[in-house]
Amino acid sequence: MSGGGEFDYIARRLAPLSAGFPGAAGLSDDGAVIVPGPGCELAVTSDTLVSGVHFPDDEDPERVADKALRVNLSDLAAMGARARAYMLNIVWPKDADAALRERFADGLAAAQAEFGVHLIGGDTTSSPGPWTVTITAFGDVPVTGAVRRSGAQPGDLAVVTGTIGDAWLGLQARLGGRDRLDAAHEAYLAERFTRPEPRLQLADVLRGHAHAAIDISDGLLADFEHIAKASGLSLTLALEDIPLSNAASAWLASQPDLKQARLDLVAGGDDYELALAVPAGRIEALRAGAAPLPLTVAGRFAEGPSGLQVTWRGVPVDLTKTGFTHF
Amino acid sequence: MSGGGEFDYIARRLAPLSAGFPGAAGLSDDGAVIVPGPGCELAVTSDTLVSGVHFPDDEDPERVADKALRVNLSDLAAMGARARAYMLNIVWPKDADAALRERFADGLAAAQAEFGVHLIGGDTTSSPGPWTVTITAFGDVPVTGAVRRSGAQPGDLAVVTGTIGDAWLGLQARLGGRDRLDAAHEAYLAERFTRPEPRLQLADVLRGHAHAAIDISDGLLADFEHIAKASGLSLTLALEDIPLSNAASAWLASQPDLKQARLDLVAGGDDYELALAVPAGRIEALRAGAAPLPLTVAGRFAEGPSGLQVTWRGVPVDLTKTGFTHF
Repeated sequence: MSGGGEFDYIARRLAPLSAGFPGAAGLSDDGAVIVPGPGCELAVTSDTLVSGVHFPDDEDPERVADKALRVNLSDLAAMGARARAYMLNIVWPKDADAALRERFADGLAAAQAEFGVHLIGGDTTSSPGPWTVTITAFGDVPVTGAVRRSGAQPGDLAVVTGTIGDAWLGLQARLGGRDRLDAAHEAYLAERFTRPEPRLQLADVLRGHAHAAIDISDGLLADFEHIAKASGLSLTLALEDIPLSNAASAWLASQPDLKQARLDLVAGGDDYELALAVPAGRIEALRAGAAPLPLTVAGRFAEGPSGLQVTWRGVPVDLTKTGFTHF
Repeated sequence: MSGGGEFDYIARRLAPLSAGFPGAAGLSDDGAVIVPGPGCELAVTSDTLVSGVHFPDDEDPERVADKALRVNLSDLAAMGARARAYMLNIVWPKDADAALRERFADGLAAAQAEFGVHLIGGDTTSSPGPWTVTITAFGDVPVTGAVRRSGAQPGDLAVVTGTIGDAWLGLQARLGGRDRLDAAHEAYLAERFTRPEPRLQLADVLRGHAHAAIDISDGLLADFEHIAKASGLSLTLALEDIPLSNAASAWLASQPDLKQARLDLVAGGDDYELALAVPAGRIEALRAGAAPLPLTVAGRFAEGPSGLQVTWRGVPVDLTKTGFTHF
């Protein structure tokens, strides 16, 4: 881990986050060494968050650290991997003060303790541009056991964990561009946007019961479409079956156009729930393994032209008129 | 690999760079899987390059890609690892046009072919800020065989590969802040700045003969000091023994203050040569293995207060008066 004039920060705040991972050499070396666990391969994933793009410029630095780790662990969860370690590349903004850096390190320390992972390396630098945080996360996945996007089979159920659209609503509230809800709902939605929950507890059951998985970052429609296309299948989702939280349902009840409002929720992204393809015979076993996290069936994969269709109360929705971008 | 609206670019230009690495799943998944080679651990390192900080804003995008890969492979070389794969996280500047992206992909393709590595994942996004390129590189290193900064022993020779200061001179020329040299020397120095040569061919001999190694990115003095401190030893370097290229020697001959000019060269950084600690009995074997790349002995590690001393013609240099920052 190098870092211009930041050796003190690295030594004082970041190096302690590598304690317990000998291959990180206390962040004092050119890089780390890592070995997959017995019988495992290493799953690797990397996401970059940019201030003003992925989080508001005035976001609490502790929450930035927390979210950067969470969105990467979410990708590991979607692969059926057990999280172990991460690298961190920071580009500080020019005006980053000591307080920002300290709170960022606080957030990182708390988040890595929660998920049992260790910092093993990376890089820090500064620029005149926005604050940029890249995390590369490492996890163990049993050999040939990684869950892929491309594994869906005809007849598989399209299954969603948790609820969808909360993060989008939380972001709208932050941006001030939406009708107000009651305080408890506001707080819940804000938390869903800021602190997505990587579904790591599902890693083992996914490998046992799911044919395909992806974490929902681009939006439920886009991410289910990724599975359908990668698997060469057709997928039809019933818009009214997409699971919503109480807070999202309360918002929905205030909307003049129910269909459009539901489309906004499922296109919004940043949910970090999982979209799955599950054989019908495995859904109950998967539910049992995932409990208390609810799983909802929202459609079915089939032979046919690969891609996504959406219905609303049985009637096909013309996605080209909804602002949804096909990938 | 995700990427907002960039799915076409990823599919057309980046996904082909993953061909030949099955664990990358054609960059179509949440992440990659990678297994160390037989008897090996995985060495991992990551560096971020920012436009206007690590390369000029008007740099050829092909060269940006090339350099981003090279500086990371240089870290693997310093660990004694064999390069295999890399992840790429790009933050495009807002004004990035198609030509920039195409040339960047061209540069990446050429560089990865030269070094025999594959792209296995990452992320792309855009921001209003400067262009930012993060590469995380993966290599194989035999179990317990990684060469570390902390392994120097009393009596070890301080050894440098190649020549030092060329990249700094090349950058000064780009910035226009330096006396002109003849055209051939200018071209050589510019190339040394833009296309550092990762010393990957030394990986095997380093593991056999060197006690410690680091790649010289912060500057020869700073990086040798990293080795000395990490190893808990004292190191004295003779400034006049630091190896220079013909081009750097020609520049030196035009300078009024030889000592200060030499200090500028060794503090400049971005050399991406290797600084090594080598037992005296192994230097000839190391030379034989490294040939035709020259190795130069520039000092010796000893018991004593850990840190760096520099002498000029036998007289200690007061580094606090030279602008050198102790880390």
